[in-house]
Amino acid sequence: MGSASRKTFLPLDPVTFSNESKAVIDFIADYYENLEKYPVQSTVEPGYLSVMLPESAPYCPEPLQDILEDVSNCIIPGVTHWQSPNFFAYFHANASTAGFLGEMLCSGFNVVGFNWISSPAATELESIVLDWMGKMLKLPSSFLFSGTGGGVLHGSTCEAAVCVLAAARDKALKELGGETRRHSPSNFRLIETSFSTGFSLSPENLRFAIEDDIKSGLVPLFLCATIGTTPSGAVDPIAELGKVAMEFKLWLHIDAAYAGSGRICPELRHYLDGVELANSISMNPHKWFLTNMDCCCLWIKEPKLLVDSLSTDPEILRNNASKSKAVADYKDWQIALSRRFRALKLWVVIRRHGLANLMYHIRSDIAMAKRFEALVGEDERFEIVVPRKFALVCFRLKPKVEEEDLNRKLVEAINSSGRAFMSHAVLSGIYVIRCAIGTTLTQQHHVDALWKLIQDKAQSLLM
Amino acid sequence: MGSASRKTFLPLDPVTFSNESKAVIDFIADYYENLEKYPVQSTVEPGYLSVMLPESAPYCPEPLQDILEDVSNCIIPGVTHWQSPNFFAYFHANASTAGFLGEMLCSGFNVVGFNWISSPAATELESIVLDWMGKMLKLPSSFLFSGTGGGVLHGSTCEAAVCVLAAARDKALKELGGETRRHSPSNFRLIETSFSTGFSLSPENLRFAIEDDIKSGLVPLFLCATIGTTPSGAVDPIAELGKVAMEFKLWLHIDAAYAGSGRICPELRHYLDGVELANSISMNPHKWFLTNMDCCCLWIKEPKLLVDSLSTDPEILRNNASKSKAVADYKDWQIALSRRFRALKLWVVIRRHGLANLMYHIRSDIAMAKRFEALVGEDERFEIVVPRKFALVCFRLKPKVEEEDLNRKLVEAINSSGRAFMSHAVLSGIYVIRCAIGTTLTQQHHVDALWKLIQDKAQSLLM
Repeated sequence: MGSASRKTFLPLDPVTFSNESKAVIDFIADYYENLEKYPVQSTVEPGYLSVMLPESAPYCPEPLQDILEDVSNCIIPGVTHWQSPNFFAYFHANASTAGFLGEMLCSGFNVVGFNWISSPAATELESIVLDWMGKMLKLPSSFLFSGTGGGVLHGSTCEAAVCVLAAARDKALKELGGETRRHSPSNFRLIETSFSTGFSLSPENLRFAIEDDIKSGLVPLFLCATIGTTPSGAVDPIAELGKVAMEFKLWLHIDAAYAGSGRICPELRHYLDGVELANSISMNPHKWFLTNMDCCCLWIKEPKLLVDSLSTDPEILRNNASKSKAVADYKDWQIALSRRFRALKLWVVIRRHGLANLMYHIRSDIAMAKRFEALVGEDERFEIVVPRKFALVCFRLKPKVEEEDLNRKLVEAINSSGRAFMSHAVLSGIYVIRCAIGTTLTQQHHVDALWKLIQDKAQSLLM
Repeated sequence: MGSASRKTFLPLDPVTFSNESKAVIDFIADYYENLEKYPVQSTVEPGYLSVMLPESAPYCPEPLQDILEDVSNCIIPGVTHWQSPNFFAYFHANASTAGFLGEMLCSGFNVVGFNWISSPAATELESIVLDWMGKMLKLPSSFLFSGTGGGVLHGSTCEAAVCVLAAARDKALKELGGETRRHSPSNFRLIETSFSTGFSLSPENLRFAIEDDIKSGLVPLFLCATIGTTPSGAVDPIAELGKVAMEFKLWLHIDAAYAGSGRICPELRHYLDGVELANSISMNPHKWFLTNMDCCCLWIKEPKLLVDSLSTDPEILRNNASKSKAVADYKDWQIALSRRFRALKLWVVIRRHGLANLMYHIRSDIAMAKRFEALVGEDERFEIVVPRKFALVCFRLKPKVEEEDLNRKLVEAINSSGRAFMSHAVLSGIYVIRCAIGTTLTQQHHVDALWKLIQDKAQSLLM
């Protein structure tokens, strides 16, 4: 036991809490200050950390200063810097001061809001913020609590999709007459997209696939359409797909994880035309909406269907508020029982920035992407492969003869320089370079420097 | 657009970050300082918050001070104070300064560690910390990376269970010869427990249930045993259940969400005897291990089976490190693609406290629970309903004649006083009061005051 006692062991003493937390704040502020000095993509080799850290936990407590030194010396070299303004690889994980503050409040209260009674503010703020967010995105009132629907915060799009899929399956089974043999989770159908539609899902192909499945005795029940796909930022035609979905009674879920945030700007709103035909829609404020990880908004027209599929009712959680049905118990809207007070984070983000600055954030990223697209277009060695819609630009070096690996080599040259980090996709067999603009800190001069870097590396490769 | 511009809109400026974060630290420290002044369980009525907050998001940014005032005036009244030392209702959500610091570092870097390359430190630290934790719990090396297994951090036990269930199902299907008709998720069997075994699962009843299912043409494939059940803290006999599971080739998962933390103390280790027979085991540092929400450790003997069931391989994430198979890509060990750098949190918790203080934390909670149990035992109006194993005491007022509601009324009287918060369970039809001791701040005098409060309220009820 050593010297442990109530006198020396004060794991949540307010004075220590304050002092040590402020030391970590200084550490993180210093990290942001120096962010551009680090190579964007980590250069460590697999297994680097196990040779730097002990094989087992310490018996005695260690000073915070030692831990922070290890974060500097051991952890940071292995971090790929998602907050670097020179990070252009994946859709972003926008950190912001406001998102960080909200995350601190969430972690500080550290409540487990599984049902209303376990912390009424957690449930009520979540409902209110989902309505705020839904109104900012101009969702029909059929998705809002103030209308006839409702929303919930999940950790990820995957979790949201699994939950609405369960609801859709159970709804279909009920309509088919309570058949108990459920459909296999392997019965997913991927419908090919192509250059001809800008990689958006074709309603005709969807109809063919549905009719095909029905002929084979299957029951198509769920369609996931995407606004802003990961490889190319493609937009599925929601209005047309929605009509097909309605005709065949499919549940239509819209995955607007990345591009959904754009809908706060009137000029980007049309991409979601037809949203009123969907059964559910999700988007991730933790991508492009200045909200630190993790935060995914899911709205659903008939929350009852989600609850029917996912609810549990253990005795220990029974209470009068739940019995009254006057409250939402969010544990019944998700996979897990436990849940964090994530709403605080999104609430602080929205209030601290205001719609005005949030629109500015989206618009300035799109303006930078437009400029980058123009720069690429002006250089005859390059071509834009897919027309840009949001802040993702898919381009490549035009290949001469059989230089298949040319663009792969270009990405590797850029990334190994440490000065920027990009990614790739393969669209109908064509290797394209993805330039995703939109970290919180990216400014015009970063994008200009990126283009210069790309040109230099291309020059070396083409020599 | 109002006045938004790059000059006024600095969402991650280091100076503002530092100033505003420190203001929130002061706010939270003040909250901890005053924690005992608030009623433990929130007293608000359903819908209280919607009348206090605007119906839609603000257009202009709001000052942090206004937001914090609203947290004080609107949010805190709706919070049930899980960090209050007088919270005895559910298994705890132990916050600690160290857990909070780790959460800040996680949120500060805000990396998305879906695969190794996306931030090598996130994956490597997670593997190292899971091995540290596994060694502290004296898990067999078959569960550790340094042995033949491996571990991963999930957000919740539910998520961990869903993932290992998928692995178990796919393993069984493969062994049955690739049959594609999968079993319905509704095919769960609850096996009753009773007073005779202290509410632990009887190996005989398990065998009966398995043999019954096999006779009906079903294929039993998964057994979830629990160490420290939620209603009564019961412990399933792992060694005996493990033998039955092996005989019938069931996947044995151990849910040690609450009591698993206790295994760092040698005197509590025997409750997990037989763990070497399990296929997987999970426990939640976010309950009783001073780690702020959320953090669930899952160890698995054959991580390959998890990856076989859950892996995805989109082109955009392909990279040489993954191809080399020299690294773990944790996205393939969980439901979601995205994931936070949770390992930082558990790492800081372990280092800042050390095994010595972590054992002290567990032992002091158990000592307080023992003392509370003794106090209850000394008062002839009360009885202990289930023998205490960890820091949960299940007791009740001995009912006279037909006073069915007596204990329910007692819980309501205690909770509505605002001075403590307790919960209940129903065990074989008997309503019991649960006193779960172990918030980070609970000390002996809080438990003594609770007992005094219980006696006073009982006195009033019995008069």
